[in-house]
Amino acid sequence: MPNNNTYVAIMAGGVGSRFWPASRTARPKQFLDILGIGKSLLRMTFERFLELCPAENIFIVTNGIYRELVKEHLPEISDNQILCEPSRNNTAPCIAYTALKLQALNPHANLVVAPSDHIILNEANFVKSLQTALDFTEKNNALLTLGIQPTRPDTGYGYINYTKTPVEGEVHKVLRFTEKPPLEQAKTFLESGDYLWNAGIFIWRVESLLASFAQHSNEILTVLGAEPEHYNTPNEQAYIDRVYPNTLSISIDYAIMEKADNVYTIPSSFGWSDLGTWGSLHAEAEKDEKDNVTNLGPNLLFNVSDCLLRAPKDKLVVIKDLENYIVVDEDDILLIHPKGKEQEIKKITEELGLKFGNNFL
Amino acid sequence: MPNNNTYVAIMAGGVGSRFWPASRTARPKQFLDILGIGKSLLRMTFERFLELCPAENIFIVTNGIYRELVKEHLPEISDNQILCEPSRNNTAPCIAYTALKLQALNPHANLVVAPSDHIILNEANFVKSLQTALDFTEKNNALLTLGIQPTRPDTGYGYINYTKTPVEGEVHKVLRFTEKPPLEQAKTFLESGDYLWNAGIFIWRVESLLASFAQHSNEILTVLGAEPEHYNTPNEQAYIDRVYPNTLSISIDYAIMEKADNVYTIPSSFGWSDLGTWGSLHAEAEKDEKDNVTNLGPNLLFNVSDCLLRAPKDKLVVIKDLENYIVVDEDDILLIHPKGKEQEIKKITEELGLKFGNNFL
Repeated sequence: MPNNNTYVAIMAGGVGSRFWPASRTARPKQFLDILGIGKSLLRMTFERFLELCPAENIFIVTNGIYRELVKEHLPEISDNQILCEPSRNNTAPCIAYTALKLQALNPHANLVVAPSDHIILNEANFVKSLQTALDFTEKNNALLTLGIQPTRPDTGYGYINYTKTPVEGEVHKVLRFTEKPPLEQAKTFLESGDYLWNAGIFIWRVESLLASFAQHSNEILTVLGAEPEHYNTPNEQAYIDRVYPNTLSISIDYAIMEKADNVYTIPSSFGWSDLGTWGSLHAEAEKDEKDNVTNLGPNLLFNVSDCLLRAPKDKLVVIKDLENYIVVDEDDILLIHPKGKEQEIKKITEELGLKFGNNFL
Repeated sequence: MPNNNTYVAIMAGGVGSRFWPASRTARPKQFLDILGIGKSLLRMTFERFLELCPAENIFIVTNGIYRELVKEHLPEISDNQILCEPSRNNTAPCIAYTALKLQALNPHANLVVAPSDHIILNEANFVKSLQTALDFTEKNNALLTLGIQPTRPDTGYGYINYTKTPVEGEVHKVLRFTEKPPLEQAKTFLESGDYLWNAGIFIWRVESLLASFAQHSNEILTVLGAEPEHYNTPNEQAYIDRVYPNTLSISIDYAIMEKADNVYTIPSSFGWSDLGTWGSLHAEAEKDEKDNVTNLGPNLLFNVSDCLLRAPKDKLVVIKDLENYIVVDEDDILLIHPKGKEQEIKKITEELGLKFGNNFL
C-alpha cells in the first residue's frame, strides 16, 4: 500500500561509456533495450518502482540533453518530474537538488534514490527490502544504503563493512566504505562475511539528508538552496542552469556517506547487477549451449564460445574459432574486444575522443 | 609490336566464393577493387593485355548475368567481344566456344586464355613470357601453359611436372599434371625442382586447340560446332543459349591438357598470385608494421597482428588482442574467421546457401 510520503528519484544522467559502442552520448545505456526484451532499462526501473508509490511521486534526474528521451520512454510523467542538471557534477549536487525540490513539495518526503540502468531479477525481494528501509528511515534520522551479498571478489564495486548484529530487524549499522579494493583485499572482504557491495540505492528522509548535507557538505546546499522559492515553479530550470555549475563535482559517497555516522544498511539479495560492463551483461543474460549471449539475426557460429555478440537484426554474422570475446557491430562502429578486459573499453572511448572528437561517442 | 593474329580471352565468369563476403554472386571478385588501388581486377587484367594486342582483339568470357558489369568496367570493348555462357559448365565448354567464335573471325588466331582475377606484379616479365609462348605456338601445333616457379608447398594449386631440358629456348615439354596434391607430395615436388604451379594461363593457336578438342573431347565440339554460321552474327547468343547447356561440365585440364601429348610450358616468374583466398591477398598486399593488411577508415587497433581487416570507409573499427584473423565487414555481413583456415570459407558459403538461400551469396 503506497505511502503518500514515499518518493523515488531515478538517476538517469550517465553516459555508460563502458557499454560503448551500444551506449553512446546521444543514447546512453539506460535508454537501450540492452537485454533485448522490448523495454529500456529506464522503463524497467520506472515500472519496478510503481509497486512502491504512484507515478507522480517518481522523479527522473538526468542531463538536459536527455529530457526528450526521458519523456519518450516515460510518457506518463509530467515535465515537473524531470530534473535536468545543466552540467555533469557527479552525484552529490544532483541528489541535493532533488532533496531541495522535494522538501519544497513535501517536507515529510521519504525518498529512494536509485540508478536507472541496473537490473533486478527478484522484484518482490527488492520491494520488500525497500519497504523495510523506508519504514526505518521514516522513524529514524538515518541514511540507508542497500547492501548486496557479494558473490565474487569483484574489484569494480564499492564495499560496505557492517556490524553483524542488527540495530533493528534487518537493519545494520555501517562501519565504513571501501571503494574498488585491490583483488587481494576484495578476497579478504568476501571471506570475512562482514562486507556487502554498495549498490548505490539509497533511502532517507529528505529532512535527514539535508541535515547531513548541512553538516558535511554545506557548500553544495549554500549554492543550490540560495533561492529556494524557485523550486517547482516555471523558473526552476533557469535557476538551476544558473547556479548548478557552481557546485562542487563530488560523489554522494565522498560528500556524505563516508563522513556521516548515521549510516545503515540492509543486507539484501534480489538478483542485482549494475550491468556496468559488457562482461556483466554476459554474466546476467540468457546464454546458448556454448555460453554465448547473442542478439543475432541470421548467423553461423563455428567453435564460438563464451562470447557476447551483438549486431543489427538483418545482418548476417559468421564467426569461426572465437572464445571469450565481445563483438558489437553498430551501424557505424565495429568493436572486437576480449571479454575479460572490458573495463578497458572506457579508456578506449577516452582515446577515441582525443583522436576523432565526439564523432563516435 | 602487336601481331594481328594475337587474341586474348579473359575468363571472367567465376563467383570467387572463397573471397566471400566481399565477393558475391551479384558482384564477384573480378569486379572488385580488391587491392584498394582504384581499379577492379578485371580492369587491371584487361590493361595488362593491351601490351600484347589491340583492345578489339581482347574478348571477355563471362556469365550472362555479368554482361552489364563487364561493359561498365571495360567501356571500350564492343558487345561482340563479350561471350556469355548461359550456364556454368566449367572451363572446357567456354574455351571451346571462344575457339569456335575466333576461328570464324580469323582461322590463324593465336590465343592467350587467362583468368580475370589474378594479380601479376612484374608485367614486363609476364608480357615477355607470353610473347615467347605466342612465338612458339605460332610455329608449332602446341598447347602451352605458363608455369610458375613454386615458392611453397601449396596444396591448393595444380602442379606441372616438366622435362628440364628445353625443347627450344625457354619452352619445355610437360610430362604430367597433378591437381592439388597432399602436403607431403607437394613438399616432394618442391624439393625435386621438376615441378611448376599451373597458373591457368594458356597459349595456343585456335587451330591447334580445336584439333585437340576433336581428338580428346569431341562431344563438346559436336554440340557447339553444329551450326557454326551463327558465330559473330546477331544470332550467336540465341544459338549459344540453346546449345551450350547440352555441353559436358568439365574443366579444360581434364578435357584436354591431361590427355594431349603436345603440351608445353615456360617456367616463369612474374610475381603471380591467383588471389584465391583472403590469405593470398594478405600475402600479396602491403602490410603495416604489425603485418596487418587493412583498408580501414577510422580505427584503433591494440595488439592486432597478422590480420586482414576490411570495413566500409566511414565505419570506426576498434579491435583489441587479435592475431591471424580475417575480419570482413560488409553492409549486410560480418565475417570473423581464422586466416589459416580460409579455404573453409567456400564451405561456409555452401552452408549459407542451404540455410538462407541466396540472400547472402
